[in-house]
Amino acid sequence: MSWQYRTVHCGEVTTEHVGQEIVLNGWVQKRRDLGGVIFIDFRDRTGIVQIVFNPEHNKPAWEAADKVRSEYVLVVKGSVVKRAPEAVNPKLKTGEVEVHISEIHILNDAKTPPFPIEDDIDVDEQVRLKYRYLDLRRPEMQRSLMLRSKAAKAFRDYLDENGFVEVETPMLTKSTPEGARDYLVPSRVHPGEFYALPQSPQLFKQLLMVSGLERYYQIVRCFRDEDLRADRQPEFTQVDIETSFLSMEEILPMMEKMVAHVFKQTIGVDIPTPFPRLTYAEAMARYGSDKPDVRFGMELTDVSDLVATSDFKVFASVVAGGGQVKAINAKGCGHYSRKEADDLQKFAARYGAKGLAYMGFKDGEVKGPIAKFFKEEEINELKKRLEAEEGDLLLFVADKPKVVADALGALRSKLGAELGLIDHSKFAFLWVVDFPLLEWDEEAKRYVALHHPFTRPKDEDLHLFDTDPGQIRAQAYDMVLNGYELGGGSMRIFKRDVQEKMFKALGFTKEEAHEQFGFLLDAFEYGTPPHGGIALGLDRLIMLLAGRNNLREVIAFPKTASASDLMVNAPDVVAPKQLTELSIATLAKEEEKVEA
Amino acid sequence: MSWQYRTVHCGEVTTEHVGQEIVLNGWVQKRRDLGGVIFIDFRDRTGIVQIVFNPEHNKPAWEAADKVRSEYVLVVKGSVVKRAPEAVNPKLKTGEVEVHISEIHILNDAKTPPFPIEDDIDVDEQVRLKYRYLDLRRPEMQRSLMLRSKAAKAFRDYLDENGFVEVETPMLTKSTPEGARDYLVPSRVHPGEFYALPQSPQLFKQLLMVSGLERYYQIVRCFRDEDLRADRQPEFTQVDIETSFLSMEEILPMMEKMVAHVFKQTIGVDIPTPFPRLTYAEAMARYGSDKPDVRFGMELTDVSDLVATSDFKVFASVVAGGGQVKAINAKGCGHYSRKEADDLQKFAARYGAKGLAYMGFKDGEVKGPIAKFFKEEEINELKKRLEAEEGDLLLFVADKPKVVADALGALRSKLGAELGLIDHSKFAFLWVVDFPLLEWDEEAKRYVALHHPFTRPKDEDLHLFDTDPGQIRAQAYDMVLNGYELGGGSMRIFKRDVQEKMFKALGFTKEEAHEQFGFLLDAFEYGTPPHGGIALGLDRLIMLLAGRNNLREVIAFPKTASASDLMVNAPDVVAPKQLTELSIATLAKEEEKVEA
Repeated sequence: MSWQYRTVHCGEVTTEHVGQEIVLNGWVQKRRDLGGVIFIDFRDRTGIVQIVFNPEHNKPAWEAADKVRSEYVLVVKGSVVKRAPEAVNPKLKTGEVEVHISEIHILNDAKTPPFPIEDDIDVDEQVRLKYRYLDLRRPEMQRSLMLRSKAAKAFRDYLDENGFVEVETPMLTKSTPEGARDYLVPSRVHPGEFYALPQSPQLFKQLLMVSGLERYYQIVRCFRDEDLRADRQPEFTQVDIETSFLSMEEILPMMEKMVAHVFKQTIGVDIPTPFPRLTYAEAMARYGSDKPDVRFGMELTDVSDLVATSDFKVFASVVAGGGQVKAINAKGCGHYSRKEADDLQKFAARYGAKGLAYMGFKDGEVKGPIAKFFKEEEINELKKRLEAEEGDLLLFVADKPKVVADALGALRSKLGAELGLIDHSKFAFLWVVDFPLLEWDEEAKRYVALHHPFTRPKDEDLHLFDTDPGQIRAQAYDMVLNGYELGGGSMRIFKRDVQEKMFKALGFTKEEAHEQFGFLLDAFEYGTPPHGGIALGLDRLIMLLAGRNNLREVIAFPKTASASDLMVNAPDVVAPKQLTELSIATLAKEEEKVEA
Repeated sequence: MSWQYRTVHCGEVTTEHVGQEIVLNGWVQKRRDLGGVIFIDFRDRTGIVQIVFNPEHNKPAWEAADKVRSEYVLVVKGSVVKRAPEAVNPKLKTGEVEVHISEIHILNDAKTPPFPIEDDIDVDEQVRLKYRYLDLRRPEMQRSLMLRSKAAKAFRDYLDENGFVEVETPMLTKSTPEGARDYLVPSRVHPGEFYALPQSPQLFKQLLMVSGLERYYQIVRCFRDEDLRADRQPEFTQVDIETSFLSMEEILPMMEKMVAHVFKQTIGVDIPTPFPRLTYAEAMARYGSDKPDVRFGMELTDVSDLVATSDFKVFASVVAGGGQVKAINAKGCGHYSRKEADDLQKFAARYGAKGLAYMGFKDGEVKGPIAKFFKEEEINELKKRLEAEEGDLLLFVADKPKVVADALGALRSKLGAELGLIDHSKFAFLWVVDFPLLEWDEEAKRYVALHHPFTRPKDEDLHLFDTDPGQIRAQAYDMVLNGYELGGGSMRIFKRDVQEKMFKALGFTKEEAHEQFGFLLDAFEYGTPPHGGIALGLDRLIMLLAGRNNLREVIAFPKTASASDLMVNAPDVVAPKQLTELSIATLAKEEEKVEA
C-alpha cells in the first residue's frame, strides 16, 4: 500500500496553502460530476474541503475517482488552488480554495450508510445506536466527543494546579446495605461471594483523607442499577473530589472557580462567581424544587393565610388541616380555555395534586370556577401578592407542603419552557444549602439519609439526634445549573461517635453498622482530619455545555432506556460453562435462557 | 470548632518564614518531652517540621500539647524561629527552623496505629492491606500515589498536545469467546443475560477509528479474572491509544516520545529515542524471551552445529531430532559446587528443561560431568563462541527451541540479578517486532492469536492464510522495559475479508464470527480507515518509575493474590434478595453460603 500521512487536515486548508502540494486523508462526503469534472466534498474530523479531479489535468486520478462513492476512505495528493470568486462557498471554512488532485489511493470502500453522515438527521435513535460507529461520524457527535475530552482536560488542569492528587479507587468492591441498586459481580475464586460495582467511591475517598492525602480527585465511572429515565444511564461518570482541613466556605469558592474554568476553556463563556446560594427551605418555598431553574421567575407564592378565611372551603379546610395553599402566576395565560386548564390539572395530578384551581383575568373579569368564592378585597390581595394583571392566570394547589411544592414546581418548569420565559443562552448556577440531614421514609418506617450516611450534621443541630432527628440540618451543598442538579457534596462526619449516632438514626443496629462499615468506624479512631468534598455528574455537565437535551448525545457508546447496548448486543446470554465456573446459575425462565 | 486552614505546608517551612506567624495542619509524627518543653515532629503530605511548646512562653498551648499522642490531628499557630546551630537537623528539609506554638486545636485524637507511620517498616503485608488507610499515610506510599497522579497527567498532556481525544468506553459490555477470563455482571432488566467487564476497550477503540475520530486515548480500568501472580491484579489500568492513517513507522516514534515525556516530567530522567528494535525471532534467540532485559549481556549462544558431531550423545541426538543446544556463560561461576549446579538444574526444570548440562573452567581444568565427552578443539570453540575464560561456567540446555528459550532465558534473568550484572539506575527500553500472528495451541488443537484476533498480518504474508498460517508475521510491536512488557500494540485489520480469514484461521465458523463480531465485520464495510494503536500497562510502568517491585505498592487499594480487598472485605456474601432480583442463584456449598 503506497500512501502517505496527511500534511494538513481537510478543515484547515486555507488560502495560505495556495500553490502548495498537500496530502489529505479522509472520507468522501459527497461526489458530484459537473461537465466531466469530479468534485468531492472531502471530510475528516476537522471539516470539509473540496477536491477536484479533472480528466484533462490527470486522467488516471480522474479514472480512480470515478469509482469512489460516499464514505470511501482516501488519501489524495494535490495542489491548492484559489477558487474563482463566483465559485467561493461562504458556508465552508475552506470555501475559498479547492485542491486539484494528482494522485489518489482508495484505502477502503464503503457501502451506503443506513443514514446520512450529517447533522440534524431524522432517524430513529435505535438505528443510530445500532450503527453508533457511523452515528459518531456525524459532525455534531464528533463535536460532542471533543468537547467532552476538552472539559475533562480542563477539570484536570485546574485540579492539578490546585494541588489535587488523582487516585484510582477500586471498581470491584463491596455491596452496601442500600445495595438494591448495586451491580453485582460473582467471584470465581470465592464461590458464593460477590463484588459490587461502586455507586460512587465515597468511602475510598474518605479513607484517602484518613490517609493524609489532603486533596483527592478522580474522574471516575460509577454504576447504578435502577430503572432508567431519560436522563440516567446505568454507568455514568463523575468528577469526584475530596479535601481535608478546608471548611465549606473554602470548598465552595474553589469548586465555583473550577467550573468557571471549565466553561471558559471549553465554550469560552465567563461564569460569574460567587454563585448565589439558596437554602433548601427557600428553594422549596420559592420554586417547589431543590434544583430550581432560576433563569426565570414565576415563583411560588404562599396564600394560605389569605384563603384560610375565604368562603372557598376546600382551601380553608386544607389550611385548617395543617396544609398550605400556594399559587403561581402564568403571565398572559388568562385566555386559557377550560380544556387547557384541565390539561394543566392532569399534569399536576401526576405530581400528586388532587386538584388544580385557577383564576384568570380576562376582559376585566375574574374567570374560573373558584372566582365566585372570593371577595373583591381577597382577589385584589391575591393579584397584589402574585403581581397579577389583566390577561394573567393564577394556578393554585392546596395540599401538604411536599405535594404543593412538587406539583407547582413541575407546573412552573413546564410553563416556563412553554411560555418561552427561558433565556437559553444563560447558565444560571447556584448552590442549594442547609438540606435536612434525614428524610422520613413512610414505607420503610425509618429515616433515610437525604444525601448519604456520611454527611456531617450542622454542629448546632447535633443535639437533635436524641430528640428530633428530622430537624437536623446537614452541612451539605448541591450545585445546580439551569434546573439540573450538577452534583452534590457535603462536609463529612469524621468522628466515630457522630458516625455511630448517624447509623443509629438510620435504623442500623450496632452489629450491622460494624459489619458494613467497621473499617470506616475504625479508621475514624486513628487520626481522621475534618474533610469534605463533592461529586459532579460529568455526563450532565457536558450535556448542558454542549446545549444538548439527552445524555446519550454526549456519551460515545450509551445504553438504551432498558440498559442495553444495541451495537454490541449487551447484555447477552453466556456459555453455561462460564456460569458454572462462577458457581452461579440463572433463574431466568427457560425460553429466556436459550442461547441467542 | 475554631480552627484555620494552613498558611503553609509542614514540609515547606524554611528560613524564609523566620519571624512570621504561620498556621499548620497535620498529624503528630512523634512527641518528645525535653526538660519540660514539648517537641513535636509535625507531619502533612509534604513532610515534617518541628513544633515547640514551651510552658514559659504559652502555658495553655503547652497544657493542650501535653495531651496529644502520635497521629493526633492538629491545627497549630505559631511563629517560625531559626534553630541554634547545634540544634539544626540536617536530615530534615525544614531542619534549620522550628515553630514556637501559641495556639493549638486538637481536631481529632488517635489510637496507637498497628504499625509505625514511616518508611521501610517490617510488617506483614496483610496487616498493611487491612489498615490500608494508615499504610497510605507512610511517606513512601504517599510518594507512590503522587508519582502516579503526575505520570497520568504527563501522559494526558502529551496526548492532548498531539491531537488525541479522550473518549470513555463502556464498562458494562459483552462477553467475548475467550470469555473464560471475563468478569460477568448479571442484568436485572434482562433475566438470564449478563454484561461482561472489559478485558480491554479494543473493539470500541477500533470502532472509534471507524467513526473518524482519528486519534483516541483513554486511561482506563480493565478486568481479567485469572489466577493472580505477583505482578497481576484482577483490575488494572491501561493507557489505551488508537490512531488512524498512521503507519507503524509513525506510531512507534510518537509512543517513544510520549514515554520519554512521562519519564522526564515525573522523575527527571532523559530516555534516549529511538528505542532499539529486536525482532521476536532475534529476542527469543538471543535472550530466550520476548521481553528481554537488555541491561546486561549473557546472551544465549547456539552451539547445535558444534555439539551435533560430538561424542556427547544426548546433545547429538537432540540436534539430530530437530532440537537445538544452546548455552549461556555465567561469568565467574566456575567455582560453583555440584550442589549449586544441581540447584540451577532444578530451577531450569521448572521451565521444562529435562536437564541442565554444565562445564566449568577452574584451576586451568574443565570441570563437570560432560567435559569428558568433548575434544579439546570442541572445548576451545565453545569457549570462543561464549567468550568464556578461566573462572567461568557454561550452562547448556538441549531441547525443543521453546524449552531451550524458556529455560535458558529464565536462568539468564536469575543469574543476571544474582551476579549483580544489572545496573538498576538504567531504563532499557526496546521494541520487539515481527511477532508471529498465530500460535498453535496443542491442547485446543487450533491456532490462537498471539496478540489478539484484530492484529493485521504483514501484507507480504497474507497469502500464507491458505497454506501455512503459523508462518504469518504480525504487524505487532511490544514495548519492553527492563525485562517487563510495558505494553503491546499492532496495526489492525481494517478489511472485512482479511478479518474473516483471521477468524477462520482461529477456528471460528462463519456463524460464530458473525454472532460475536458481526458489528465489527459490518463496520469494516462502511469506510474504515487503516488504523493501529497500543495499550500500555500503567500500573507496571508506575512500579518501574517508582523503583518498586510489586504492583501493590503503586495501587491505592489493591487486591491480594486471591483477589480480595482485605480492608472493605470484598468479595462478600450478599442478601439472598439481591440475587433473586438478578435472577441468579449461587451454587456454592452450604457452608460457604452462610452470611458472614
